[in-house]
Amino acid sequence: MPHIPLDPQLPGISALFAYRPETAAPLGQLGEVLLRGPSTLTVGERELIATMVSQGNECRFCTGSHAAVAALTLDGGRPVVDATRDGIDNAPVSAKLKALLRIALAVRESGRAVTEELVAAARAEGATDTELHDTVLIAAAFCMFNRYVDGLATVAPDDDAVFDLIGKRLAENGYAR
Amino acid sequence: MPHIPLDPQLPGISALFAYRPETAAPLGQLGEVLLRGPSTLTVGERELIATMVSQGNECRFCTGSHAAVAALTLDGGRPVVDATRDGIDNAPVSAKLKALLRIALAVRESGRAVTEELVAAARAEGATDTELHDTVLIAAAFCMFNRYVDGLATVAPDDDAVFDLIGKRLAENGYAR
Repeated sequence: MPHIPLDPQLPGISALFAYRPETAAPLGQLGEVLLRGPSTLTVGERELIATMVSQGNECRFCTGSHAAVAALTLDGGRPVVDATRDGIDNAPVSAKLKALLRIALAVRESGRAVTEELVAAARAEGATDTELHDTVLIAAAFCMFNRYVDGLATVAPDDDAVFDLIGKRLAENGYAR
Repeated sequence: MPHIPLDPQLPGISALFAYRPETAAPLGQLGEVLLRGPSTLTVGERELIATMVSQGNECRFCTGSHAAVAALTLDGGRPVVDATRDGIDNAPVSAKLKALLRIALAVRESGRAVTEELVAAARAEGATDTELHDTVLIAAAFCMFNRYVDGLATVAPDDDAVFDLIGKRLAENGYAR
């Protein structure tokens, strides 16, 4: 049961966007730039970063939604997403993406947990300045979205099929409002 | 030393905004709506929430900057900001603001740490739905800003006078870009 009166037809952050359009506009724009804007990281790679941070923060709505988008957009699809969620070390993704995911999980703990060593390891696998920047900001942004969604106790679907529908819509339409 | 090449003349998040204008635009707009937009919470109250979350996250740049804005905008000024930073229970602020600050510090830990009891306590002191919403989102947003600033190892001023200048500029001009 949400802490404030939200439209019961709308799951997760959708209900918050409808409740407060003034903040929904920049939040949607931020998601669009970070996850869909021009980047040398693929949409699937960025959605996987969002998924892993959301999983670390135990945000069921964001994890389910972004895992569903990642399953539709990442090379290898759902099996690669599931294997990565089980552990980065054995994930069937590039060494660069693994290094960026480790940075994202450090950001989840604290900005100060991002060490020179983590950054150097990503650079050694070919990560660029902008990829490092965007990885940190995507991870930081999901530390916000996860807290926003759960801090107001929004409702998450119980049915995986609903997450698949949410994922399909986000994969097709993105985040801009 | 920042993890990516940033303008050394620019402290904290300013250097990141200059580095990546595409993400600076929605981030600035979000700050403006949350901290300066129409609200039944005063600018000083909202800046105090930002300060307390940033202090909890040990983000020196954001804490110094927003404490300086709060000192210029909150009733009672710097002594009230300093007393609150020493502990909410004995802070010389309203019972409603104390209850909202407790919610903000819960959000800092995890969205799931915001309990029905914390929300009921704030409502008992007169907090409205929108004040509850905005408190959660301000706290969540500073969990992002703090991680962004420290996750890329931006430089924070050593001199309190610089924070006072930053505070004066933010108090006068806000966050929109």
